[in-house]
Amino acid sequence: MTDLKPKTAPGAATGPDVKHMKWWGWGVEGVAFHHEDKPNFAPFVKKMVGVDLWADAVTGAPSFDDLDIPASHLTEPVASALATIVGEGNVVSGDLERVVHTYGKSIRDLFRIRGGVFPRVPDVVVYPATESEVAKIVAAAVEHDLVLIPFGGGSNIAGSLEPMAQEQRTVVSLDMGRLDRVLDIDEDAGLARIQAGAQGPDIEEQLNAKGWTLGHFPDSFTHSTLGGWVATRSSGMQSDKFGDIADITRGLRVVRPEGVVVLRPLPSTSTGPSLREMILGSEGRLGIITEVTAQVHRIPEKREILAYFFPTWEAGLRAMQAIAESDATPSVTRVSNSFETEMSLATSKESKGISALLNQGVQKFMQLKGWDLSKICLSFIGYEGSSEHVDRNEKLVSKIVKKHGGFGVGKGPGVLYDQKKFDTPYLRDFFMDHGGAADVSETAAPWSKLLPLYNEVYAAAGRAFEKIGVQGLLMAHLSHSYHSGACLYFTFAFEHGDDALGQYDVVKKAIQDAFIQEGGTLSHHHGVGLEHAPWLADDVSAAGAGLVQTLFDATDSQRIFNPGKVTGH
Amino acid sequence: MTDLKPKTAPGAATGPDVKHMKWWGWGVEGVAFHHEDKPNFAPFVKKMVGVDLWADAVTGAPSFDDLDIPASHLTEPVASALATIVGEGNVVSGDLERVVHTYGKSIRDLFRIRGGVFPRVPDVVVYPATESEVAKIVAAAVEHDLVLIPFGGGSNIAGSLEPMAQEQRTVVSLDMGRLDRVLDIDEDAGLARIQAGAQGPDIEEQLNAKGWTLGHFPDSFTHSTLGGWVATRSSGMQSDKFGDIADITRGLRVVRPEGVVVLRPLPSTSTGPSLREMILGSEGRLGIITEVTAQVHRIPEKREILAYFFPTWEAGLRAMQAIAESDATPSVTRVSNSFETEMSLATSKESKGISALLNQGVQKFMQLKGWDLSKICLSFIGYEGSSEHVDRNEKLVSKIVKKHGGFGVGKGPGVLYDQKKFDTPYLRDFFMDHGGAADVSETAAPWSKLLPLYNEVYAAAGRAFEKIGVQGLLMAHLSHSYHSGACLYFTFAFEHGDDALGQYDVVKKAIQDAFIQEGGTLSHHHGVGLEHAPWLADDVSAAGAGLVQTLFDATDSQRIFNPGKVTGH
Repeated sequence: MTDLKPKTAPGAATGPDVKHMKWWGWGVEGVAFHHEDKPNFAPFVKKMVGVDLWADAVTGAPSFDDLDIPASHLTEPVASALATIVGEGNVVSGDLERVVHTYGKSIRDLFRIRGGVFPRVPDVVVYPATESEVAKIVAAAVEHDLVLIPFGGGSNIAGSLEPMAQEQRTVVSLDMGRLDRVLDIDEDAGLARIQAGAQGPDIEEQLNAKGWTLGHFPDSFTHSTLGGWVATRSSGMQSDKFGDIADITRGLRVVRPEGVVVLRPLPSTSTGPSLREMILGSEGRLGIITEVTAQVHRIPEKREILAYFFPTWEAGLRAMQAIAESDATPSVTRVSNSFETEMSLATSKESKGISALLNQGVQKFMQLKGWDLSKICLSFIGYEGSSEHVDRNEKLVSKIVKKHGGFGVGKGPGVLYDQKKFDTPYLRDFFMDHGGAADVSETAAPWSKLLPLYNEVYAAAGRAFEKIGVQGLLMAHLSHSYHSGACLYFTFAFEHGDDALGQYDVVKKAIQDAFIQEGGTLSHHHGVGLEHAPWLADDVSAAGAGLVQTLFDATDSQRIFNPGKVTGH
Repeated sequence: MTDLKPKTAPGAATGPDVKHMKWWGWGVEGVAFHHEDKPNFAPFVKKMVGVDLWADAVTGAPSFDDLDIPASHLTEPVASALATIVGEGNVVSGDLERVVHTYGKSIRDLFRIRGGVFPRVPDVVVYPATESEVAKIVAAAVEHDLVLIPFGGGSNIAGSLEPMAQEQRTVVSLDMGRLDRVLDIDEDAGLARIQAGAQGPDIEEQLNAKGWTLGHFPDSFTHSTLGGWVATRSSGMQSDKFGDIADITRGLRVVRPEGVVVLRPLPSTSTGPSLREMILGSEGRLGIITEVTAQVHRIPEKREILAYFFPTWEAGLRAMQAIAESDATPSVTRVSNSFETEMSLATSKESKGISALLNQGVQKFMQLKGWDLSKICLSFIGYEGSSEHVDRNEKLVSKIVKKHGGFGVGKGPGVLYDQKKFDTPYLRDFFMDHGGAADVSETAAPWSKLLPLYNEVYAAAGRAFEKIGVQGLLMAHLSHSYHSGACLYFTFAFEHGDDALGQYDVVKKAIQDAFIQEGGTLSHHHGVGLEHAPWLADDVSAAGAGLVQTLFDATDSQRIFNPGKVTGH
């Protein structure tokens, strides 16, 4: 990461003091990826996708002035109704604010932003500060026939934030950023009441100050919110210990036209169908989530991430399965395939991290063991708890790793991984600057289906790359383990031609189709939105997708709440 | 337990070979509770509720001939349509079959059966053998405007099985008993496809034969089905290790008019709102569950249940909480309050079990420690896994128990508890024979709220007992632990007067109101049905209950699927 000159749009946002990412890309203004101190990176990219990073960037951040932003449809009565509720300073209809709230950060979003493609932009951004204000906004939406799209950190990559292109009504982006507080920690029960608009770092800072952690660390952590995690059924890197957000979420408050749905925090209940699990993953279609009561944990005495190498992907995968079946209870189980391992080595600085670790001695050791160095797979296993618990688990895992032909290489790389784990999205913007297209697709499937699924995804992506005439790169890792299966996370990249999004669609579709065909879900933790809606019926059957649509239609006949998302209708 | 002469109705059931409980009470014909070999039991009952068990039974099993069963409304076209689907022998409209399928086994059900109160009896019982037959029955229900009530083992105690009293249409009880097979075990993923009508023992027998277990053991285990567990969000005694049925259930097949909802087995997914968790707890209102793909586990190398004593209820409760917060991962955490402990001691035979264990030596030890013997609380903690895992966990728990003032008394009582754990419901029938009324209410709440809730339940039940003029007994135990809270299970008993159910209603309402008032849920694992429907809006808020009602109305506008359950409408 390096500091760059801000490429911000002319004129700062006029809204309240709520953090937003760059309007044109991931993360904080002035921070970007650079490769000059990573000598192996440019050769890796050249070899894998044919892009020359030493050549000048072919594109870069666009100039806001060049954009042609459709005018806001906001009418005076609506503006005035909203201002009465939240105050004039919290109703913003300037172009920059509206563009910031048009998209998330998927490759489709970024290409459209860079290309100035805005079929529909929200007409206004509103910043409520209380649940009562949210309730009044919902009432105003009923009265004035508005569309409400809740907006958290804007990190969504499933198309859950954009207005439907054909929407004729006034579209309000409901920015939850002012609802950012941890309201209360029940230290006896390990439960914290947290406002939906609180971003990851805000939450951890407020909890850590009292000795607690939420333990939810998705890749988007630094720029995503609790409400967004709930709305999209997010999962964090330490889910093996802390659970997915669906497990972490115990209580909820959701504003609807007829009142607030209040789900009190309960460890378990037989009151079904589960409203908690209806709101989870609802992406704004069932109402506005204002507050979550979440399980929290005392900050552990000890926390370590150890690195291991395996001779092959299959060995690594089987080791993760064996760990899931064992008495060991690690917090993180992750193994990268050989391509992603090579990428990890290539993104390390010479003097530090994995690449320093994979020195002559280690390489010689691998060769002595008969390993093919082009096939080695890097794994990270995390441990949290009492010192004794961590030590015991490291021993249990060490035995399993050995049994599967792997070996441990200590703490060094894990520390580095831990520090840099949220930086990957910056890399995509950098790659785009050089004519590259990259995105991710992840799934979950039973252990028995993971290898066939993995193989079919590679075959399908290979055919797709060939079809669009590119040298594509596909990398994968296993990132979350469960009793009966795991999440596989794929990253694909290629040098795009004129129709970048058309090419992306071919590759994305090939991968998603392979997920479904091989028994995986459409997404493990990125949600459905518009991007994955075409696979909804494949995932939950036509009758199941029909049930979801009926639920949305019946509970929101006026189509106020983020219409179109999840089901596409 | 002892074998008694069968009190069966004249004429055996004419339906297929599907196991049913006694038509008038719990369990198998010919098995009943008796107290003659438990010398402390009658004095305990006399002291606690004033009932003299040595007096002759005041009631007993009713005579089927004395019952006035409303005639079946089954018409020839419907009978013939159903017979075409499942075959004539699987369409039964005899009185005995219809009575067996009218109620579950709640106190309300048993008093009504014994009193010959049948406001509405199903008109016919149908036994499909395949999902395709279920689909045809659903189509017939649409065509002929029938009501379908799925029936598993008939153990429900929340009123989920009975037809609504005012129902004018033909009511079909859909007995799933012929769908009783484990279809497939995916030994790589630890997933088993099991038909919804399979009862607990059938499932374990089929799984055990291949080295696997489902690990789901509710009190009703011997007479309840997988489909019933899913439909009511059941929880088993070993949920601390295996999870509630909501965790165990990974895939589902549910027949609806527009097709089969097929949820493929997935370890996790971000496809929301969760259809899996909508079907869980839906009590037949969203369709007919035909198949469940469930997590299964290899039969553990070692399994032990150890007994412990605590000086007070609060000490026991805090110890369970400390265990839940610790690195220990037991399979069962259970502690009884002093009343239930006294009851456990009183139901032991002199020569065996807890009462033999609480011998002079142990009592002296307790007295030396300054314990008040009237306040001691018995606890069972279960352990499963590798021998090393069990030993380690026993040590971890032992430390926590000591820290909370308790001590262990070994394996003996646990073995006995394990053998007899499914027998308790027989005791209620026996108690009813002697003029007693008894039932249960259970809840779950955050750890911070458990003691205040417990105290308020005692206060409320005390006021209720006073109001109805009885000497009531209330007992409690903690039965399932979670990160943020636990389940408290209350049993109440009293000698009833002429209006037994009126008296029951007063006590039941007092306890349920206290649950809600103190932050507990309406039921932890018994479901909602009709019995708990009055507390639905209190539990999930009016807006939440409205959402559930809207879901049911919109997805079943013809009101075919078990109308009235969960919401009361």
